[in-house]
Amino acid sequence: MTAVQELQHQIHAARGERPLDLLVRNVRLVDVYQETIVETDLGLCGDRVVSVLPGGRRAARRTLDARGRFAIPGFIDAHIHIESALLTPDRLAEVIVPTGTTTLLVDPMEVANVAGYDGLAEFFRAAHALPYRIFVQVSSRVPTAPGLETTGGELGPAQVRRALAWPDAISLGELDPSKVLDPQAPYLKKILAAHARSKIANGHAAGLSGQDLEAYATARLADDHECVTLDDVKARLAMGMTIIVREGSSERNLRDLISGIVRENLPTRHMLFCVDDKFSADLAAEGHINYNVNQAIRLGLDPLRAIQMASLNAAEHFRLDDRLGALVPGRWADFILSESLTPIVPVQVFVAGRLVAEDGRLVADVPRVRYAAWLRNTVRVKRGTRAAHFALGADRPRVRVRVIEIVPDQIINYFREAELKVEDGQVQPDPAQDVLKIAVVERHGKNGNIAVAFAKGFGLKRGAIGGTVAHDHHNIVVLGTNDDDLAACVRALVKMHGGFVAVAEGRTLAQVPLPVAGLMSDRPAAEVNRALGGLNAAARELGSPLNSPFMTLSFVSLPSIPEAGLTDKGLVDVRARKLITVLI
Amino acid sequence: MTAVQELQHQIHAARGERPLDLLVRNVRLVDVYQETIVETDLGLCGDRVVSVLPGGRRAARRTLDARGRFAIPGFIDAHIHIESALLTPDRLAEVIVPTGTTTLLVDPMEVANVAGYDGLAEFFRAAHALPYRIFVQVSSRVPTAPGLETTGGELGPAQVRRALAWPDAISLGELDPSKVLDPQAPYLKKILAAHARSKIANGHAAGLSGQDLEAYATARLADDHECVTLDDVKARLAMGMTIIVREGSSERNLRDLISGIVRENLPTRHMLFCVDDKFSADLAAEGHINYNVNQAIRLGLDPLRAIQMASLNAAEHFRLDDRLGALVPGRWADFILSESLTPIVPVQVFVAGRLVAEDGRLVADVPRVRYAAWLRNTVRVKRGTRAAHFALGADRPRVRVRVIEIVPDQIINYFREAELKVEDGQVQPDPAQDVLKIAVVERHGKNGNIAVAFAKGFGLKRGAIGGTVAHDHHNIVVLGTNDDDLAACVRALVKMHGGFVAVAEGRTLAQVPLPVAGLMSDRPAAEVNRALGGLNAAARELGSPLNSPFMTLSFVSLPSIPEAGLTDKGLVDVRARKLITVLI
Repeated sequence: MTAVQELQHQIHAARGERPLDLLVRNVRLVDVYQETIVETDLGLCGDRVVSVLPGGRRAARRTLDARGRFAIPGFIDAHIHIESALLTPDRLAEVIVPTGTTTLLVDPMEVANVAGYDGLAEFFRAAHALPYRIFVQVSSRVPTAPGLETTGGELGPAQVRRALAWPDAISLGELDPSKVLDPQAPYLKKILAAHARSKIANGHAAGLSGQDLEAYATARLADDHECVTLDDVKARLAMGMTIIVREGSSERNLRDLISGIVRENLPTRHMLFCVDDKFSADLAAEGHINYNVNQAIRLGLDPLRAIQMASLNAAEHFRLDDRLGALVPGRWADFILSESLTPIVPVQVFVAGRLVAEDGRLVADVPRVRYAAWLRNTVRVKRGTRAAHFALGADRPRVRVRVIEIVPDQIINYFREAELKVEDGQVQPDPAQDVLKIAVVERHGKNGNIAVAFAKGFGLKRGAIGGTVAHDHHNIVVLGTNDDDLAACVRALVKMHGGFVAVAEGRTLAQVPLPVAGLMSDRPAAEVNRALGGLNAAARELGSPLNSPFMTLSFVSLPSIPEAGLTDKGLVDVRARKLITVLI
Repeated sequence: MTAVQELQHQIHAARGERPLDLLVRNVRLVDVYQETIVETDLGLCGDRVVSVLPGGRRAARRTLDARGRFAIPGFIDAHIHIESALLTPDRLAEVIVPTGTTTLLVDPMEVANVAGYDGLAEFFRAAHALPYRIFVQVSSRVPTAPGLETTGGELGPAQVRRALAWPDAISLGELDPSKVLDPQAPYLKKILAAHARSKIANGHAAGLSGQDLEAYATARLADDHECVTLDDVKARLAMGMTIIVREGSSERNLRDLISGIVRENLPTRHMLFCVDDKFSADLAAEGHINYNVNQAIRLGLDPLRAIQMASLNAAEHFRLDDRLGALVPGRWADFILSESLTPIVPVQVFVAGRLVAEDGRLVADVPRVRYAAWLRNTVRVKRGTRAAHFALGADRPRVRVRVIEIVPDQIINYFREAELKVEDGQVQPDPAQDVLKIAVVERHGKNGNIAVAFAKGFGLKRGAIGGTVAHDHHNIVVLGTNDDDLAACVRALVKMHGGFVAVAEGRTLAQVPLPVAGLMSDRPAAEVNRALGGLNAAARELGSPLNSPFMTLSFVSLPSIPEAGLTDKGLVDVRARKLITVLI
């Protein structure tokens, strides 16, 4: 059936000239336009709502008595890096859809860094028959730190312009201030390319205020999901920026922001919700956007306004309101049935008029996604499989070195110094003072780069850990007490085409394969989360006191969050935006 | 300077790295995001706002002390047929810009009916250096009544798709219910083409309710400017439709709608303002969107909300909020300075950072628009210049005929009947019973059609009147007491390439040339309005009691408003959508 024929059917159904496909009777409809609750019936044809007036006598192929349940527009996550869940989109369905999420607005920055334009195209091509919707925020900064890292792919203005033409592309993905405050033409071109397609450009304005924030808004970045304080919120609203209230695995901003918004009764029309980065285990344990909504209501936000933030506001901001964001005729029939609004507990979830989840369980059949072989075979190293590759030579008996000290559960870190012994002409890590060797191994098959440095805070007493999730270049990052185990980690990671691994004395203690782009698993969520539990247990067994040593490790590699980053090219002084030596 | 370089300059200016072009100090800024008034300064670079924080110490090429005046975003008319003002866009500037209008969202349906795609392209190409902005609602129904009228141009799905690709095209223009309730594929294709470009489709849902309104919303028409009652407003809001509150020359809906909206405290986020059709004389006498805003405030609407309706709400609905609708960094510096909000009286108006009007007078230089010769030469008749062309034969001494009876100051009309004498084999009009001859003469140079009928209510005792404004086909429509004067009208209209004329005994009593597409004058507004005054005086002298006989005449030709319409093809029974005979 053509799109025109579908539309004709829907119009005929709305006029009562053909039966509805589904009539959901006796709902308390959450009307996000009138900002009220309406007792009525909900009529569907195909994937659309076609009727919201009481329709008790209307003919329908199927009828469902909602017995007074609230009908709520499906929830929209306004900004998520789907890779952070460590699951492919099809496997993520069972985690998020039962919570009432029906749409993700995805910035696939990690896949893009690994696999470039073609990788993005393949990633979204394959994910076309999901029981929820995905729209694309076309990643704007691939690579994140040009010249300071080797990535698998790059998205220049030409690739970005092509991707913005995809029907599912809704915006240019988040641009950080470094690209526009000292304005660089390629990034400004990307912004203008989005506008030329009637699409917006997403922001990421962490820590900005005053004239810098004005300059950032002048660059026409439309929103910010990095607000931490109510002052951040008000400052951005005064710039005409939309606020995306984030509650992820580690970045938890909701309580402070919503409390303040409620206290000062700020208009919420330009406020949305997101998780940004949230592990599937946290999504499963705590919830997704339903968690944000329910927490906001608990903090005193009017339920109607909280629901608007999770539906209409997001649809309008991203210019999807011709099809999404409200239960009105002509829009997609994506909705939640819940007994109450305080809290909202999805009893049933519908997407495109189909029941997809019930009582907390996915009931839709999800066709297994088949990615092209090359997207499952992205871990290609030229060096790093032998201990000798990690040698760091010195001609003195002792040396002073720069050490990256991590902060537990944070992505920031600090430069420290340490004195290390040199044996057989090679600088030795020192587990006794918790100074371990860390290395980044280029894994995109390009140049065989290996950078070696030292890190403090991981606490390993023996063995090594490593992974192919290493922001944002996603080379291999390994950390350990000895070179043999570093090499063993690399070999294990290559063998399983990416993932996480813990090794001791050459033996693999635990591993989690993430073969899709070296970032995601296509195994069931429960299986992956069990494996992750085993992995973290293994790291603890090796001596680490951290809650999430692999997450922390994956951010040491990031060359854009102060103070230090380690890429395949070497140790990066983030503030100075340049490479520096490890030996002092 | 390229767009990227301009943006770089603006970012540098925002950061204080180069001087502002203009610093407007001491404004009370109407902040439509925070919904509050902020005492601050407004910094501009090029055509954009780049600073809204207090900037007293910032370097600026020029400084203006606003001495506490309110700085208000420039007003947006969300739906106007610019041709109704009878002035070309450049000549309209002096009428509307001093009132604070900085943007028109134009459905150029009349030009399209006369001159088709090429005419539209030429019309907007020429109007590129105005002291206000124009965006295009691509006309969706050209012709309005396919098969029942001859138009100069047609816009099928292919032409509409091309026009939607113009950078200034923002939507598909208003579609009336007849095209979608009995859903016709070409019109549905136009809607889907707009959505494919991330653009919306405008509605026109006069009189719809219940299932028909649901079907109309199902067809994804996004708004309605035809609401007459508060019930209309609420019904459309429940369908997710945006309400465009209209106050034009004859359609005056504002009082009823705003009073109800205030009384019931409806959310105004999805409400905008428009005039739809308003003569330049009324715009000059009463105002434009400033009139809507001030009236709404007088009726009790919060000034902040009234201003949002005229700015941010319109920009967001039409997806122009990346550049328009608020005084925040990165948006166009289009604004009004006013001493008060109750009422708003624009002391100065700025567009793109330039002062364009002051104390009610246009101060910007408006380059005279030069239209292509063919757009000024659109009145081409094959017949109609001789009395014999208007003969209506009959072989009886008396006949019964159908008569169109007009309603003063309305566009509806009724079928009546009359008995007329036949002399020399021709049916005669009868001024004594106010049954006059009316004719439509095809003027697009296509087929020489002439349709003759009879009309009641115009009251002419001698002579004839006529014009080339004849909705929506815009052929020549003439009405009078004798065939010689009908032919004299046609000759005068051809000679001046379109306009209005009043004739008696073969002599022109008054005329208003409208040479641009036969619809608009490119003379100064005051001159045109004086000429229109003389024209109406002449019609009164000929015996007409009507206030606006030429406006009324221009709607008798419309084959889509009940009961009757007269096109070049004949007399149309609007409800039956078919041609019927004049003789009974």
